[in-house]
Amino acid sequence: MKTEQAENVQEPNRNFRAIDSATGFRISDDFERFSQKNDAFSRSTWDPVLQSKKATNFFQAYLMPHSKPRKGEGYQHLDYALRNAAWHMATTIRQIAPGRGEGFQDYFTAHEEGWNEEVDVGNPEQASKVVKNAAIMLGADLVGVAEYDERWTYQERFRRSTLKPGQIPTAEAPDLPEGMTHCIVLGSQMPLSLNRTVPSALSGGASGIGYSQDASTCISLAQFIRNLGYEAYASMNDTGPSIPYAVQAGLGEYSRAGLVITPEFGSRLRFTRVFTNMPLQADQPIEFGVKKFCELCRKCSNECPPQAIAKGDAVSEPHNTSNTKGITKWTTNAEKCFKFWCSQNTECSICIRVCPYNRTFNNIFDRAWRRLAGSPLRRLALWLDDKFNSHTAKKAGWWWKERNANKQRYSSITIEK
Amino acid sequence: MKTEQAENVQEPNRNFRAIDSATGFRISDDFERFSQKNDAFSRSTWDPVLQSKKATNFFQAYLMPHSKPRKGEGYQHLDYALRNAAWHMATTIRQIAPGRGEGFQDYFTAHEEGWNEEVDVGNPEQASKVVKNAAIMLGADLVGVAEYDERWTYQERFRRSTLKPGQIPTAEAPDLPEGMTHCIVLGSQMPLSLNRTVPSALSGGASGIGYSQDASTCISLAQFIRNLGYEAYASMNDTGPSIPYAVQAGLGEYSRAGLVITPEFGSRLRFTRVFTNMPLQADQPIEFGVKKFCELCRKCSNECPPQAIAKGDAVSEPHNTSNTKGITKWTTNAEKCFKFWCSQNTECSICIRVCPYNRTFNNIFDRAWRRLAGSPLRRLALWLDDKFNSHTAKKAGWWWKERNANKQRYSSITIEK
Repeated sequence: MKTEQAENVQEPNRNFRAIDSATGFRISDDFERFSQKNDAFSRSTWDPVLQSKKATNFFQAYLMPHSKPRKGEGYQHLDYALRNAAWHMATTIRQIAPGRGEGFQDYFTAHEEGWNEEVDVGNPEQASKVVKNAAIMLGADLVGVAEYDERWTYQERFRRSTLKPGQIPTAEAPDLPEGMTHCIVLGSQMPLSLNRTVPSALSGGASGIGYSQDASTCISLAQFIRNLGYEAYASMNDTGPSIPYAVQAGLGEYSRAGLVITPEFGSRLRFTRVFTNMPLQADQPIEFGVKKFCELCRKCSNECPPQAIAKGDAVSEPHNTSNTKGITKWTTNAEKCFKFWCSQNTECSICIRVCPYNRTFNNIFDRAWRRLAGSPLRRLALWLDDKFNSHTAKKAGWWWKERNANKQRYSSITIEK
Repeated sequence: MKTEQAENVQEPNRNFRAIDSATGFRISDDFERFSQKNDAFSRSTWDPVLQSKKATNFFQAYLMPHSKPRKGEGYQHLDYALRNAAWHMATTIRQIAPGRGEGFQDYFTAHEEGWNEEVDVGNPEQASKVVKNAAIMLGADLVGVAEYDERWTYQERFRRSTLKPGQIPTAEAPDLPEGMTHCIVLGSQMPLSLNRTVPSALSGGASGIGYSQDASTCISLAQFIRNLGYEAYASMNDTGPSIPYAVQAGLGEYSRAGLVITPEFGSRLRFTRVFTNMPLQADQPIEFGVKKFCELCRKCSNECPPQAIAKGDAVSEPHNTSNTKGITKWTTNAEKCFKFWCSQNTECSICIRVCPYNRTFNNIFDRAWRRLAGSPLRRLALWLDDKFNSHTAKKAGWWWKERNANKQRYSSITIEK
């Protein structure tokens, strides 16, 4: 599957790792690990550039009394009611341990006692198979294994609870325990029907469902590994970025919109991780033609209302402090993106909706299209996508009233787990 | 779909409800609401008939340090590790509110503030559609609506925390708030591959996954309804039995093994409920031939090691205090069933595994078989099931080593939600 390594060859430097040859990541000598205080969400709490009344409203709207429904279709009471209900379990689990923001600023600690010595489950290849079997059964739609890579652990953590008004947050060292050797990356799909209604408050339910499911899956998998006597820490947005790990674990390819495109769900899924010291076999990065397709296709960048997605080539220059320094890549402008979210009073994922890879791949046509998109006939694939696969937005009214919610009755398509 | 009502006609009595004509429930004058202290789990904590060292071990084995793995395939360390990890989220959520056993003895209280006035979502038919749309999206595999029926609310609640050693539990009144008009019944399938390994500790993971998913789904749906300004209480094993509500809500038919057989998953699924005062439209019970098929087929009763399942006709006489009084039905012997569980040190669901309806119905053959089983040719359906659909147990080694866990890769079958 590796076809384009020649152009990824780079001068080894102190930040280079062997895996970069397979992922195509180009990391330069001035690379700096990202600090969580600089992500757009964190900055909106302390950085005047992103602080605003609208940002405060945006966050508060996840609690129903502050949701501020309006008349526009997709932003009505019903839409916020479902979105916020979808987020509810993630919010509940986040608050289990007092003083921590688990899954967002801190790794999860909701565990019971495991086993007191390491259980032999075979060689690393067999151990990886055991862990993957368990992960899929515990709720993951995709699973891969990467070696632990300290480049993707935040340089500094950010804790809202210690933030003093008007000040830059104090630096806190990352608290992921030392000795982790592997990172298990779990992917969970977001519902296509909700994604079709982007932009809308309703479609924010897709993220909420993803987060709520992810929290359960990664905690349960970490518990499974603890039950075998190894250390395991479940992590969502805390600890560090997921995207590079998802690429290194072979789940998909990095794309123009800064997301990972997988062969199964396009970029319509979320990633969560479990760090462990269990001896596992890491997966290899995959290539199925996404990079060349993204070079051709600009649907995400053309359709992005605040023009936050790169229209040109990969660059090493950050837009602002919310980008990691020292990586050459397609880089989105998180300030523009977040400000648009605030202006809408909900999340946006138009870039996911309009992506030609945003399909279910449960039929032969989608699978044939995927082959075509990964071939030299990719221009034809893009034309076919324009012609036959409508990525235009559906109205929230369609979602609530016209879909058949219970369509599984008598014709169920089930994942045979 | 109603073909056999004639034989269900009964003399109206003080316990008769109009819905009984459609469900076929025959409730007599001496019907008594069930008391939770009399279910086999509760009795094992206070009734000498079911108290034993094995029963104590059975419950403790859900915590890893007390799991007592043994050499037999399916009961090894790996099997208990997965089973207990699968149960972990249900166990965690159960303990969120100190002093309560939520989902097991008490309804769930993990809620945030909803909306402060009732939002108009249309007439009851439209409201039911809204609720079903939300339920499927929040994780349910099936959903139906029944009217609230006080016959299925426990006469007395049972609280382990107030149990005094050596004494019969004190009676506690049910605490489901008054004014509930409807019960939304949610079904979630248990993974077929785990069920294939019954009897085994590994297969207990199927229940754990069911409970963990159910807890999340019903809490989230109750939050959704609260977000619309109505009252909603999420319930699993607490509050009362699920089976009669699942039948009344049209999810399936009552079967010989005392479970509900659904057209989509056979009896391989769990039910959970949300009680609400939201004005909804109730569903109608369904018939697709299960009753007549069960009259013919005795796979579950023949294969049950402790012979706990009725081989004969429906009777009104209870086996012991763990049966509800005053209903004519196929009645299982919960004492025999529970004692077998304890002897295995894990749950059993052989009756689910061997049921001819235990299929995925994601292919034309299974769906054709379902039609046949519901027709006068049901004897042929039973013969075909014997001949072509192997319900014999798979070994845990098959589950861990021979299945392809990540088989979705490149050929994903996804539920299009």
